[in-house]
Amino acid sequence: MYIAIMGYGVVGSGVAALIRKNNESIAKNSLQPKMEVKYILDLRSFPGDPFENLVISDFTQIVNDDEVSIVVETMGGIHPAYDFVLECLKKGKSVVTSNKELVAVKGCELLKAAKENNANFLFEASVGGGIPIIRPIHQCLAANEIEEVAGILNGTTNFILTKMINESMTFEDALLLAQQNGYAERDPSADIDGIDACRKICILATLCFGKHVYPESVHTEGIRKISLADVEYALSWGGAIKLIARAKKLESGKVTLSVSPAFVRKSCLLASTDDVFNAVLIRGNAVGDVIFYGRGAGKFPTASAVVADVIDCARHIERRKVFGWEEGGEDFIADYRDNETAFYIRLITSDKEKTLASLAEVFGETDIINRSDAPENELAFAIKPVREGDLGEKLASVFANEIASVIRITDY
Amino acid sequence: MYIAIMGYGVVGSGVAALIRKNNESIAKNSLQPKMEVKYILDLRSFPGDPFENLVISDFTQIVNDDEVSIVVETMGGIHPAYDFVLECLKKGKSVVTSNKELVAVKGCELLKAAKENNANFLFEASVGGGIPIIRPIHQCLAANEIEEVAGILNGTTNFILTKMINESMTFEDALLLAQQNGYAERDPSADIDGIDACRKICILATLCFGKHVYPESVHTEGIRKISLADVEYALSWGGAIKLIARAKKLESGKVTLSVSPAFVRKSCLLASTDDVFNAVLIRGNAVGDVIFYGRGAGKFPTASAVVADVIDCARHIERRKVFGWEEGGEDFIADYRDNETAFYIRLITSDKEKTLASLAEVFGETDIINRSDAPENELAFAIKPVREGDLGEKLASVFANEIASVIRITDY
Repeated sequence: MYIAIMGYGVVGSGVAALIRKNNESIAKNSLQPKMEVKYILDLRSFPGDPFENLVISDFTQIVNDDEVSIVVETMGGIHPAYDFVLECLKKGKSVVTSNKELVAVKGCELLKAAKENNANFLFEASVGGGIPIIRPIHQCLAANEIEEVAGILNGTTNFILTKMINESMTFEDALLLAQQNGYAERDPSADIDGIDACRKICILATLCFGKHVYPESVHTEGIRKISLADVEYALSWGGAIKLIARAKKLESGKVTLSVSPAFVRKSCLLASTDDVFNAVLIRGNAVGDVIFYGRGAGKFPTASAVVADVIDCARHIERRKVFGWEEGGEDFIADYRDNETAFYIRLITSDKEKTLASLAEVFGETDIINRSDAPENELAFAIKPVREGDLGEKLASVFANEIASVIRITDY
Repeated sequence: MYIAIMGYGVVGSGVAALIRKNNESIAKNSLQPKMEVKYILDLRSFPGDPFENLVISDFTQIVNDDEVSIVVETMGGIHPAYDFVLECLKKGKSVVTSNKELVAVKGCELLKAAKENNANFLFEASVGGGIPIIRPIHQCLAANEIEEVAGILNGTTNFILTKMINESMTFEDALLLAQQNGYAERDPSADIDGIDACRKICILATLCFGKHVYPESVHTEGIRKISLADVEYALSWGGAIKLIARAKKLESGKVTLSVSPAFVRKSCLLASTDDVFNAVLIRGNAVGDVIFYGRGAGKFPTASAVVADVIDCARHIERRKVFGWEEGGEDFIADYRDNETAFYIRLITSDKEKTLASLAEVFGETDIINRSDAPENELAFAIKPVREGDLGEKLASVFANEIASVIRITDY
């Protein structure tokens, strides 16, 4: 069976190398006499590369070659990836992608095209890199009604937060180190503003809850505002600050989503997920909480997930995998301001005694959190779950000029 | 589609209840108009139970009813479970089991029978309760050569060790508490001597490495000898003692297996896996380390895995899942005494200064480990990897009467 790879960057070259490295077992697991890369589409040339002679620049060669049954898309971005993938599906070729932006924005449409042409469109690598997550949701937890999916889905921000937590590095220094290590782009905003995690939680939420969630409907906050003071308070509270992307089904049947920094209790493995690792928690109504952990990015981990999908396509070449993935209606997403959430709040007060005295009246029961060497006018505490919209109004009206940090607290 | 359940204990009753509770989504995911339990086989009667009227005591009713396509085996033990399962497979019925003893001892034979009769024999629930693990190994990591599989596979021993670690409870007190909570049997030996974990690592090793590993070929140690002193030294060393079952492929192609207490570094999530939770680590040559975590036992978590297999059987009723599971040859398993392993050693010495002075000569480089309030004649240290057989001989000849503890150190 012949495969074409579109995009010969980090992931694409990993896919080509992995198919060669583990070729015997990959062919065996694919139930095929052989599995071979026939074309690599890229506008660049790669002199001296072991796959140099497979590189072509004309997409029509792939789409018009009936010998190519499976096309791997590792180009990234929407255009031309979307157009190429759609054309391949229309020719009945199965497509495997690692492109989270493509799946988050065009997944519903591409799955529809796959269905109409009896082809597969698989995307395990688009979330959590090498961690098996999409297939387990779809198959292994099929007996559950899924109540919530949440996780650490961005390795760059988790690396930065880990350095802040374990080495008391400032956000700016940790970001610089991430850039020096190649974990963060020169323009790091897609990572640190939560955009990347947002795309991934859209994909997971769609798989868990059956209707397409688009990135623009998710309340998204990044980690730029996290200070070392917040990191210390999280430790003292008994956990760690992580960038948590989550989607939860409400009793109304609607789904609420958010991407934001959050306090996570030490007893939850998400709090121990460090460096560039990712972890995904799924809460099912039978299984309880299960967590999947591993490398969320990188050449070979991501290629591992892509090639697993390629193997699946090869095994099911005449049989389509069915995902419950429909267009989301207007009423499917709940307003995040209606969520009942616990919060950590840090104030820089003008009159600490007076503020302390007023806390019970404003928030009800609160837990004061301490840290060593705190400035005298600093006051930090955790409040019980409250409607997020109400909290925003309350804070604005009572403590407008005193608010230093407001961070969600998870219930795991 | 009709299902029969054999054995109406904790797991069997969970399966019946879950199929009713999530019936709509289970039928949808099964691609069937309906999924219904037709019989429950048990010698007991269950007056007042919601499924009372489905309970029968005659197995032949199930095996001779052509309407029953899928049979769930949740009886436990080898006989008559094995005989019943074999008869069902011979009739072309698919069988799903949660019975680790059956799979560990008869898996190869039953998969062969399934193949010959074009039926499925699935057993996700036999390892790790509700945690998806068998399907991820088989499908999601199919692009990897698996190098090692290891984990915390027994919730009872993990509960006991957690109480010893977090609350300084003695082994005896923690065992008693586990029995009071229903986590441990009155005769707890299958758990605390490692027998249960051994069966599970046999199943995982067979799936990862393709040849049947039988429990009797695995070096198995339990946790009876673990003292609070060892627990403290593990903390001071920077980790925790866990009962680790592991299987590793050697460069020779042989597989080495063991079940034993082991020191695990705090940076590995296995060290943070507490209480009755289970976790499985898989090391692939592309993906690196991935970890799967969740409830390893219990009514609904285990039923979640059983019903996922039932759904899979229903979706593939005319299509068999293929596992690479062959009879193991004599030469497949390496002697554990040939393993190169790092160790923690605790001595009660008659002459501490003299022993300290001799350490370098006996073991090469060692790291002394301290704990507060240690008896004056106690000496604890970690040694670099050494052939296990050589260490045994060396310890016996040099420190015969001084050895208090010898515990493996993992490399994760």
